[in-house]
Amino acid sequence: MLHKPDVTRSLARYLAVTRWDDIPREVRHQAKRSFLNLFAVALAGCRTQPVEIAIASLREFSGGRQATVIGRNERIDALSAAFLNAAAANVHDFCDTHLRTVIHPTAPVAPPLLALAELRKVSGPELLLAFILGNEVQARIGLAISPQHYDKGWHITSTCGVFGAAAASGKLLGLSEQQFVSALGTASTQSAGLCECLGMPAKSVSVGNAARNGLWSALLAEKGFDGPAEPLAGRQGFYNALGEQPNLSLVTDGLGASFEIMATSYKPYPCGFVIHPVLDCVLDWRRGHPAAEVTRVVVRGNPLLAHRTDRPDISTGRESQVSVQHAVAAALVHGAAGLDQFTDACVSDPRVLALRRKVEVERDSSFSTIAAAVEITTSDGAVHRLSQTAARGSDVNPMSDGDLEQKLKTAAAAAGLDVGPLIDAIWKLEESADVSRLASLAVPKG
Amino acid sequence: MLHKPDVTRSLARYLAVTRWDDIPREVRHQAKRSFLNLFAVALAGCRTQPVEIAIASLREFSGGRQATVIGRNERIDALSAAFLNAAAANVHDFCDTHLRTVIHPTAPVAPPLLALAELRKVSGPELLLAFILGNEVQARIGLAISPQHYDKGWHITSTCGVFGAAAASGKLLGLSEQQFVSALGTASTQSAGLCECLGMPAKSVSVGNAARNGLWSALLAEKGFDGPAEPLAGRQGFYNALGEQPNLSLVTDGLGASFEIMATSYKPYPCGFVIHPVLDCVLDWRRGHPAAEVTRVVVRGNPLLAHRTDRPDISTGRESQVSVQHAVAAALVHGAAGLDQFTDACVSDPRVLALRRKVEVERDSSFSTIAAAVEITTSDGAVHRLSQTAARGSDVNPMSDGDLEQKLKTAAAAAGLDVGPLIDAIWKLEESADVSRLASLAVPKG
Repeated sequence: MLHKPDVTRSLARYLAVTRWDDIPREVRHQAKRSFLNLFAVALAGCRTQPVEIAIASLREFSGGRQATVIGRNERIDALSAAFLNAAAANVHDFCDTHLRTVIHPTAPVAPPLLALAELRKVSGPELLLAFILGNEVQARIGLAISPQHYDKGWHITSTCGVFGAAAASGKLLGLSEQQFVSALGTASTQSAGLCECLGMPAKSVSVGNAARNGLWSALLAEKGFDGPAEPLAGRQGFYNALGEQPNLSLVTDGLGASFEIMATSYKPYPCGFVIHPVLDCVLDWRRGHPAAEVTRVVVRGNPLLAHRTDRPDISTGRESQVSVQHAVAAALVHGAAGLDQFTDACVSDPRVLALRRKVEVERDSSFSTIAAAVEITTSDGAVHRLSQTAARGSDVNPMSDGDLEQKLKTAAAAAGLDVGPLIDAIWKLEESADVSRLASLAVPKG
Repeated sequence: MLHKPDVTRSLARYLAVTRWDDIPREVRHQAKRSFLNLFAVALAGCRTQPVEIAIASLREFSGGRQATVIGRNERIDALSAAFLNAAAANVHDFCDTHLRTVIHPTAPVAPPLLALAELRKVSGPELLLAFILGNEVQARIGLAISPQHYDKGWHITSTCGVFGAAAASGKLLGLSEQQFVSALGTASTQSAGLCECLGMPAKSVSVGNAARNGLWSALLAEKGFDGPAEPLAGRQGFYNALGEQPNLSLVTDGLGASFEIMATSYKPYPCGFVIHPVLDCVLDWRRGHPAAEVTRVVVRGNPLLAHRTDRPDISTGRESQVSVQHAVAAALVHGAAGLDQFTDACVSDPRVLALRRKVEVERDSSFSTIAAAVEITTSDGAVHRLSQTAARGSDVNPMSDGDLEQKLKTAAAAAGLDVGPLIDAIWKLEESADVSRLASLAVPKG
């Protein structure tokens, strides 16, 4: 492998010198969209079993009530808050995605910043700048080894997220270039996470750790804790240990000139992304035909759709997230495809169950993974043909600002929370001198 | 790679069913020797800079004073105590070694148990049994991928230590077979640590995390937190992500019939193990010639000795740990090779500096790595020839129980601590009904 001992230093220098004025307007706006989405998915995930168990365990060891746990009344130490909010944000696979790496970028990076903002004085521009830079570093470290890194079984959100969390947290702490090298080194030796754990509570541990340990790496570096000079490309460093042949130019080329956060996709539906164009078709049609009796549905899409989601027989809410038959059936019955449609209860609903059996899946390699066609036959014999060329939420057909606000409102309503003030605060982050209260706007009144 | 979905379950079953009565007498004795050595090296490491920074940082987030930090008056939460005691034990590379894997086995495994024993009632036999089984699981997981795993840059003490810590902690918690599978799964997704960090404070983070995160994996499993069925050999599991072709029979064959802890080596000197046979020769000779003026030293040993430690020009205590010239010179000047001989101060001592220049190293592949020959020429022209065929501390020439007691006493004396009661308590562990006070015997009176 090419030994290129300046990769980490290039990132460190970029992190140390980049200022708020260097960030283009559309990048700032995208960062705010990511925060809207983060609060939506963390509110949706904050009462799930993995988060409940983790908080019950961490509480026994935690000191102080430094930081907010999104959606919950209890406060906890800042490291644990970073863990819990990251875990909650990612638990449903409803969070955002950087498609080229399949990193879920916001879950590991934003929670440490929200926790730090409750310990130190942080302004809105400082928060957004740190978030954007952490996002950038994490994506670039992952791009150099994508797609093979994920394909081998590494949960890339976790393995690269710890670098993003360290970089972002370090920016809030005002680390020097050398301290950033140390922080990334301490992050490198904590990089972990296996795809074998996907679908299990254990998944949440590596995502939470990425946030917690990245934050801790930056805090240690601030206190003078040293790491190696080249943790990424060093002889016994991150890439070599992984057995990778990284394309290091993807880490450093054009640093500062482009922003990977612009390639973030946000999900309208809490299920596998390949199902999304199908749901776009079905939900649009259902709006005009709320009372129709459906006798048959034929779904056509990229072979990946059938490969990953042709699952007519399922029994749990979690399985339903990767069943196109279930998604179609639930959307037709309820006219919606939100978290309520991917629960155990919805899976065992007899109306949904009956309709699942009427959904067929066809492979057509002329479709991209964000396109699909659907044929719905109703009891009157009519055949309704629908198609979607670019799924809502994909980078070429992004969710609108209003869609993201609605996603947050829907998640908040289920938690009995009025998020008007939170939405307002996010859009006005650039003008805020102190964001210490931001996360607490996502907590229902006790 | 062979998919063998019962590897983790085999380990889990072994962990669940093995009882104290299944442990042979010599294995129990070896476990006590490992605890003696642990306290020695943790006392030696507990005031080093990485530990000082880590404790200062963790203190800000920690709740309660649940557990002992060895050698220090402050108490801290149990997870942080596991971290700190593991980090301290390993910081000097003075801890024990399982030579076939180069795992330092006790640092990640014993500290979580000592911390747990301050939270729950634990007897001496329970402590020793848990320690022995954690040691076994960690060694076997590492054996399946040794030596290539370490050679690629993975810090195997950390990457396998988290499994050992989870297994041992789970045994103290009385986990079921299924809960052990979950605990090992949650451990697998926290397995991390890079050799690039060796020699830097960052190294201590992965060792400390192995202890902390293994303990936490077991605590989460106790609360019903699930992991995957086959985290080790699963399609996207530990071994596959690492790109390894593990020899899985080394994980499971003969489980219960043999004990890897019997292959533990304890170090008499805090420096690279290849230097040890040289120091045996020099120190023996020096005892009989305390006042001799040495004019030349020729050291002959396995080529690895020269390859790793032929470093006449050094400037720091840390470098001195891998300089055979320094080790010989310091041993001749001081008649000792303890921690004081591998400090910055000793490195810059003019007497040692002068003598370092008189040491030559020769390669001889007829020597094993634990053998060496030394020729010492004195100012009267006499040439003294010495040799060692098996270094003290190696598995074929182990440190005696008395040597280990002395190692602990030396470390304790530097900390102003009388370890008589601790040594006594360790030898009597089998008869102890409650070991909650054990670690606190390693704390100087405040």
